[in-house]
Amino acid sequence: MSLKKIAEKSGVAISTVSHVLNGTAKISEEVRNRVLTVAKETGYLSSRLRRAMPPTLKKIALVVGSERLRHTDVNYVSWTILESLRKECTSRNIEIEPVLIDDFAGDYQQIAERVLGSKCDGILVYFDEDRKLLDEVFKTGLSCILLAGQDPTMHIGSVGIGDRNGARLGIEYLKDLGHKHIGIITWPGRYTIRQRQDGFDEAIRENAGIGMSGVTIMLESFRPESAEQGMLEWIEQNPDLQGITAFFCMADNVALGALKAFQQKGIRVPEDVSILGFDDILAGQMTQPPLSTIHTPLHHIATSALDELELLSRTSEEGAPAKRVELGCRIIPRQSCQAIIE
Amino acid sequence: MSLKKIAEKSGVAISTVSHVLNGTAKISEEVRNRVLTVAKETGYLSSRLRRAMPPTLKKIALVVGSERLRHTDVNYVSWTILESLRKECTSRNIEIEPVLIDDFAGDYQQIAERVLGSKCDGILVYFDEDRKLLDEVFKTGLSCILLAGQDPTMHIGSVGIGDRNGARLGIEYLKDLGHKHIGIITWPGRYTIRQRQDGFDEAIRENAGIGMSGVTIMLESFRPESAEQGMLEWIEQNPDLQGITAFFCMADNVALGALKAFQQKGIRVPEDVSILGFDDILAGQMTQPPLSTIHTPLHHIATSALDELELLSRTSEEGAPAKRVELGCRIIPRQSCQAIIE
Repeated sequence: MSLKKIAEKSGVAISTVSHVLNGTAKISEEVRNRVLTVAKETGYLSSRLRRAMPPTLKKIALVVGSERLRHTDVNYVSWTILESLRKECTSRNIEIEPVLIDDFAGDYQQIAERVLGSKCDGILVYFDEDRKLLDEVFKTGLSCILLAGQDPTMHIGSVGIGDRNGARLGIEYLKDLGHKHIGIITWPGRYTIRQRQDGFDEAIRENAGIGMSGVTIMLESFRPESAEQGMLEWIEQNPDLQGITAFFCMADNVALGALKAFQQKGIRVPEDVSILGFDDILAGQMTQPPLSTIHTPLHHIATSALDELELLSRTSEEGAPAKRVELGCRIIPRQSCQAIIE
Repeated sequence: MSLKKIAEKSGVAISTVSHVLNGTAKISEEVRNRVLTVAKETGYLSSRLRRAMPPTLKKIALVVGSERLRHTDVNYVSWTILESLRKECTSRNIEIEPVLIDDFAGDYQQIAERVLGSKCDGILVYFDEDRKLLDEVFKTGLSCILLAGQDPTMHIGSVGIGDRNGARLGIEYLKDLGHKHIGIITWPGRYTIRQRQDGFDEAIRENAGIGMSGVTIMLESFRPESAEQGMLEWIEQNPDLQGITAFFCMADNVALGALKAFQQKGIRVPEDVSILGFDDILAGQMTQPPLSTIHTPLHHIATSALDELELLSRTSEEGAPAKRVELGCRIIPRQSCQAIIE
């Protein structure tokens, strides 16, 4: 896209386009908006910025636990994040140097040395379970962003999903459908899952005034087979389902198992109970009924993380605070949730 | 700063600088880093980017409640955010059109019309108490960012302080000093204060295993005089202080009042009890003893919000998630907290 093309598309002279984009002359509000809209929609603005940006990031170290790299059907989240990172790095011409945490047997200092030795311009860390690793990475002095995790000490910036708000969205959705007694199906998960549980608890607490209440059903793991088995046992022990009309599963994988368990017990979804998932994985579109869920913008994590890393590598203001970025979720209503008709 | 100056400072030829900044030739790792460091530290990189950015934001509407504008000693937070916004807009050549919510007597649709009529390129909203206002603002279709608030439905992006994590930082700090039984002094505040309380509760819960516990002392307001009165009464009712060794105040203003109350009752700070504040207001440096507190990067909210607004006004990807940005807090240790010697 050239200035000439933009001029044609917006029906003005090239010099006018140039004045608008460079702010070199006062142009009428109406014309200015027309030119900017074309420049924006054709992608001219973003590519102009990209060109103006010196390639401060040529190589990044990706510090990652090997379990994230495994491509299995239950590893959808990690795999999506890492695949979109690879794609985004290719398009930005950034080389990735993978540093596998498992190769260092817990010697985090050695990991930091390896990263420094790789001559990279920045670090992405996809592993937030051990603060000692973050400390060592921080001490390298290189720009660093956590992928899909969070630094509780707020030294290192991070990009992740707004899991807590996503859970709140889910509760609001079920509330609007008339559900008041809600079961959360979860498991002793890591950070992400605890955030979702917190959002759930918070939303239930805030709606207690209108009679909402929540029950936590704690499973052993998030795997569909394990969730199916766990829910079969729970239904046997609670034939009245404790009066719950909607089950909110903290992952689609759990919802897949729960759906099977209910169907085996002759409990109809959504006629008898509603089921809401979390993640929006592909398999959820193929169940019968298709799964209503919370969409998590996993594809945007890598883009945002690289944006933040580039920002850090360009500016060096002393004492600037680390940024925590959370990407908004949205409801995907399909057929597994239904309004309560009183 | 010119390419020539950068070349001089980094001891290379101008053509080398140009190659590094434009990526037009392969330059050795060492030289590239030297040039980039100079370009970054002298601010050349940021200003080059600013120049490349067409002035997509020429005028923004600031939708704000008039109580935020009042400059009183207890309105430090709002005032700091708005003053830094004004400064940042001046430096970026952005005109601010203030839209005072109070002028419209709750007619949010009229506010939206007023904003649309002002021909602005984007909206900043500094008022998050009523979701209906956010809905109307969202419907204008203009780029919008919430200042120091949050949209629970995640449609509108926002920039604020990491209040929850800030509270967690405070608890970790007190824990490291050996305090186990901690009082939180708070009041029925808005969103920000509830986030701080949540972070407090969360951190206490996580440290329950090592014997930490928390007591909530709910005051009527955050004003220093009110906090002083409230704490005087609480101390009279609890002469043993319930065994609390450290009080974590959810605002410095509250800490100022609490400090006075303890001193009036002959309870020494920090010898008998430690007091930790939140906000890092100027008055906290001048108390006797000076107040240990959590620094909130208020000055960076406006910059980040304008960055996000510019980003929104440049790109128009369909379905891109709204971003929630939280700026990291840090501990400012002064003399009002002391380690417990066992």
